[in-house]
Amino acid sequence: MTRKKVGVVNVTGYAGMELARLLAGHDGVELVSVTGRSVAGQKLADCLPYLEGLDLTITAEPGNVDLAFLALPHSESACEAARLLKEGVKVVDISADFRLKNAALYPEWYGFTHPFPDLLQSAVYGLPELYRGQIRPAELVANPGCYPAAAILALAPVLKEGIIAGSIVIDAKSGLSGAGRSLSLKSHYCEANENVTAYALEGHRHLPEIIQEFALAASTEAPEVTFVPHLVPATRGILASCYARVKKEISPVGLKELYNSYYRSEPFIRVVDEAPHTKRAAGTNLCLIYPVIDKRSGCLVVISAIDNLVKGAAGQAVQNMNLMFGFEETAGLKAIAAYP
Amino acid sequence: MTRKKVGVVNVTGYAGMELARLLAGHDGVELVSVTGRSVAGQKLADCLPYLEGLDLTITAEPGNVDLAFLALPHSESACEAARLLKEGVKVVDISADFRLKNAALYPEWYGFTHPFPDLLQSAVYGLPELYRGQIRPAELVANPGCYPAAAILALAPVLKEGIIAGSIVIDAKSGLSGAGRSLSLKSHYCEANENVTAYALEGHRHLPEIIQEFALAASTEAPEVTFVPHLVPATRGILASCYARVKKEISPVGLKELYNSYYRSEPFIRVVDEAPHTKRAAGTNLCLIYPVIDKRSGCLVVISAIDNLVKGAAGQAVQNMNLMFGFEETAGLKAIAAYP
Amino acid sequence: MTRKKVGVVNVTGYAGMELARLLAGHDGVELVSVTGRSVAGQKLADCLPYLEGLDLTITAEPGNVDLAFLALPHSESACEAARLLKEGVKVVDISADFRLKNAALYPEWYGFTHPFPDLLQSAVYGLPELYRGQIRPAELVANPGCYPAAAILALAPVLKEGIIAGSIVIDAKSGLSGAGRSLSLKSHYCEANENVTAYALEGHRHLPEIIQEFALAASTEAPEVTFVPHLVPATRGILASCYARVKKEISPVGLKELYNSYYRSEPFIRVVDEAPHTKRAAGTNLCLIYPVIDKRSGCLVVISAIDNLVKGAAGQAVQNMNLMFGFEETAGLKAIAAYP
Amino acid sequence: MTRKKVGVVNVTGYAGMELARLLAGHDGVELVSVTGRSVAGQKLADCLPYLEGLDLTITAEPGNVDLAFLALPHSESACEAARLLKEGVKVVDISADFRLKNAALYPEWYGFTHPFPDLLQSAVYGLPELYRGQIRPAELVANPGCYPAAAILALAPVLKEGIIAGSIVIDAKSGLSGAGRSLSLKSHYCEANENVTAYALEGHRHLPEIIQEFALAASTEAPEVTFVPHLVPATRGILASCYARVKKEISPVGLKELYNSYYRSEPFIRVVDEAPHTKRAAGTNLCLIYPVIDKRSGCLVVISAIDNLVKGAAGQAVQNMNLMFGFEETAGLKAIAAYP
Repeated sequence: MTRKKVGVVNVTGYAGMELARLLAGHDGVELVSVTGRSVAGQKLADCLPYLEGLDLTITAEPGNVDLAFLALPHSESACEAARLLKEGVKVVDISADFRLKNAALYPEWYGFTHPFPDLLQSAVYGLPELYRGQIRPAELVANPGCYPAAAILALAPVLKEGIIAGSIVIDAKSGLSGAGRSLSLKSHYCEANENVTAYALEGHRHLPEIIQEFALAASTEAPEVTFVPHLVPATRGILASCYARVKKEISPVGLKELYNSYYRSEPFIRVVDEAPHTKRAAGTNLCLIYPVIDKRSGCLVVISAIDNLVKGAAGQAVQNMNLMFGFEETAGLKAIAAYP
Repeated sequence: MTRKKVGVVNVTGYAGMELARLLAGHDGVELVSVTGRSVAGQKLADCLPYLEGLDLTITAEPGNVDLAFLALPHSESACEAARLLKEGVKVVDISADFRLKNAALYPEWYGFTHPFPDLLQSAVYGLPELYRGQIRPAELVANPGCYPAAAILALAPVLKEGIIAGSIVIDAKSGLSGAGRSLSLKSHYCEANENVTAYALEGHRHLPEIIQEFALAASTEAPEVTFVPHLVPATRGILASCYARVKKEISPVGLKELYNSYYRSEPFIRVVDEAPHTKRAAGTNLCLIYPVIDKRSGCLVVISAIDNLVKGAAGQAVQNMNLMFGFEETAGLKAIAAYP
Repeated sequence: MTRKKVGVVNVTGYAGMELARLLAGHDGVELVSVTGRSVAGQKLADCLPYLEGLDLTITAEPGNVDLAFLALPHSESACEAARLLKEGVKVVDISADFRLKNAALYPEWYGFTHPFPDLLQSAVYGLPELYRGQIRPAELVANPGCYPAAAILALAPVLKEGIIAGSIVIDAKSGLSGAGRSLSLKSHYCEANENVTAYALEGHRHLPEIIQEFALAASTEAPEVTFVPHLVPATRGILASCYARVKKEISPVGLKELYNSYYRSEPFIRVVDEAPHTKRAAGTNLCLIYPVIDKRSGCLVVISAIDNLVKGAAGQAVQNMNLMFGFEETAGLKAIAAYP
Repeated sequence: MTRKKVGVVNVTGYAGMELARLLAGHDGVELVSVTGRSVAGQKLADCLPYLEGLDLTITAEPGNVDLAFLALPHSESACEAARLLKEGVKVVDISADFRLKNAALYPEWYGFTHPFPDLLQSAVYGLPELYRGQIRPAELVANPGCYPAAAILALAPVLKEGIIAGSIVIDAKSGLSGAGRSLSLKSHYCEANENVTAYALEGHRHLPEIIQEFALAASTEAPEVTFVPHLVPATRGILASCYARVKKEISPVGLKELYNSYYRSEPFIRVVDEAPHTKRAAGTNLCLIYPVIDKRSGCLVVISAIDNLVKGAAGQAVQNMNLMFGFEETAGLKAIAAYP
């Protein structure tokens, strides 16, 4: 079988780097193009020595590919995607530029007026567990944010079934790779090590994405969601602790059965029997989910764990590509966590 | 002035070790006795080399002291405390044996029938910000648990003022020292490093303590509290993220003023202007508190940060001792965080 | 092609766990047996949840296999290996039981009299870069220790060529996984985190192995080697900094050429252009080597970096197996580091 | 007693910050001035929240002080020191600008021609264990580099006594705070975490300082020194592993006695009985030293451990100040490590 040609636009951030790693180990595709404006002309291996096995030169613009992964900063992706789509190139966009259906939210949350609002409607939200059928034929897939991926997978079953009501609290803990590769004091080793902190209490950009998908899952008005992200001193991993009031009574056994049934055929979801550890998902495309009813308060608690760079970014993108190309959904994504 | 003689019973755990450190730097007291059954007879410095400045031999039983800090396992403390109190020795108990007013809770939560239920009534809960007046004359002070200390200080003002209602979520993140010095796989470096996990979802022992104090602060029935502790890969620090519904409307400015006013004279509480970092409290007796109303969901969010071994254990105990001896409340507790 | 059947004896330590991970991703073999005495009867996934993809039950004894990896404690391996060899099973022994050619060294360094000294002669030291031809037909391969692997690969070229003389210093830094999965205070998170220490200054067990191979490489008497291992707060990785006096003059360019030439065809050795980072080898079977002459002191400095659990243990074992079975040498070992 | 007035020039780096912490807890001085050009005009507590206890405003230039600590970048310190000395202000310079006696070394190693070569002769190298008598009356003290402090204290006794000969290897491991607070990829959390690397193999700036002091201690020509610094994933701590050939035979007992005797009266040196842990010195001004003869190779191995920001920078500076002001040498430096 001829391998599909794929490219990574902006390979020098952590999501782009992780894409290069996963695509290099994927039998169905050939990674033929990697871009990075500030380092164009350099050998990939000179710029990122651990990728020495990939004999590629970084370019300023993507070459001739069947599908491009865009890992550009928010707002730049939209224009690049529009251009590539016109050329018949499929696009999986890692940025937030096509995640929100409502164009009016972009100025408020991302500080720019969306240049291609029509594309927002044709873009498919790239969470296969919810939108597999639409992803397969899509030309443009909006890869979910890392926090939304963890939160939506945690609560989709109970939202769909109308089990929970009213306000939802998402308390998420992320490793530092979620803060990106750009230098900043918050990611400076000595400031981040031995430190835990909440941030973005004024409103994190992933909130409207979470609300949009919660509402769609529940087929209701947008629920009240309080979302507080935290940084913890680790490189990879998101643990999302989700709290909600139960409106339709369900037994502990019933809750477990609901999740098992909902995710029965999902290749990357594991409904687990004890609170998940992020380390057990590290380097994999898995999402570990632990749903429980607090027997004293009656509160529903669902804990989900993902690797923010895999199921939260690059692995999710490859899963979407697999669907778009008609590959086996797990192709290139079968590695076991390098534990410990 | 003659220094008061103090002792640490069970110096070989992290709380006991931290007590030794703090007491050694305290001008008003002389640390004359340290016990540790399994290492009795050894020089303290041979057992714990970083304490080489302290010329003490570990004994099996505490010597002649004015006040003893008990850092024994739960259930052993009660008997030791009763014995010492009879001898006229003041006691600050780091264990949970005197924290709960209701003796009936001990079998359920700690697995033993309390041997001295009468002492539960005379014991004072050692959180000076709430019980300063009672701590001063007390003979027996029950030092708060680390999670309760963080959670109660975070919410006491809004509980007292009746600002919040209904169910409360406490999502707390602790460094590994909270899990103690006893060997276990969960504290094994390679298992804990690069890992985040929730635990005790079936009910953590600190829950009844939190509920007791929340009810007392609010002068109401016990509120519904969902408390989920987490372990993060750091040695020290607790960050407690507390979520509650607002029942009595309050403006953001009013909320800030309430906290400022409530904690105005408190030497160890800092109401801060941005989400606190645990690292900024490391090694200190401070509790950093950041209260905010989520403007979209209307949820009250209060984030508090402490060093679990200081304000969450040994420092809190020294603060209690200072009150019991009539010392300046901050004596021996003025060190600045060794940042970074 | 029929897959070869392989087993891991003692899967519950870090080397055994890593073997399970690598073998599960190897197309040429089927992992049919995993043993672990203390947990025999358990499902592998119940014991080690991150291995949930492997549907195996842990047994007390290995089943019917073509090749067994022994990850037993030192001294137990020798007997098990002898037994398996008699049954016609090939053996790759991860323990030290067959690494030393001189049986007389076992009582001194490992505290037991070797039960099968004859096997020491037929065993092949499993470092393919030095003994590839002998590994291919071998029935019994002694997998190198993690420190020796890093040190020998660093210095083999200059030892062979007689470039260095006299005393050699090996200053090696290891992550905590090298200290194993057994509980101990030195591996307790709070004691190991934010700590660096040297250990085994009275003589580490890997020293005679290093000396044996240095002497064989140099075709000389055993050189004087000072080997000091250190523990650093990381999970994986060994960085070996090797220092030696130059006796046969060589230019910086000549040194680089010597290493490039020596390792030209090696699939897992990378002679790099700047001091290597252990992180760039994490999860891979690579050994990164940086040789340099200190221009002021004239000292030869060679820095090598490996993942102690891969090139230092399980990956090395799989590479040996590949040779023994006539597989492509890199089969199952092509993964790129999951950086960062 | 009137407190001496002191200032910290450039408080916003890690050495300056640590000075502020230590000086705030020093009874003999008042920290009256802190400078920082880029943040002049800000409250110290706004810039560095953990220093909220210090009511100071950052200025561009130091105010009226008895002694100034200069924590400026190399080359800027020299001019500022000259200016302050003229005004009668004592100076402890944390930079390297007055450490080297030979002005000719500055262009080679630091890239600038020394503007005040005469001051190099009057400056005293601020290592009290070697130069106490000269530090007391000094007006200008050059605070040692962090690596030199660890290396010189490790080897001074054997250099003085002529025990060692020929070439010396210093393999030093430093936490990331040694790399400073300026943003760089090497200090970016995700790049530094789980990584060990050597650096500056072409020659680190601390090398001429080490050689100068080794020669002075040994009263010989400059010895051949190979110095390779490493970065390990910790915030604080330097472990220096020093290797040297023995030329004058000495027994293990004799070696231990030599060190004990040499450092008998030193308040901050501990000759320890097992390989030191950096964590045991964290936050303290201690230097832990473990000298041993490798019984097989005959090599002298001395391991020293310090907190790079305390004995390696700010604490050392305070110790020097104590001597210059005639204070008790340990004033303000008595804190015990906040272990774990």
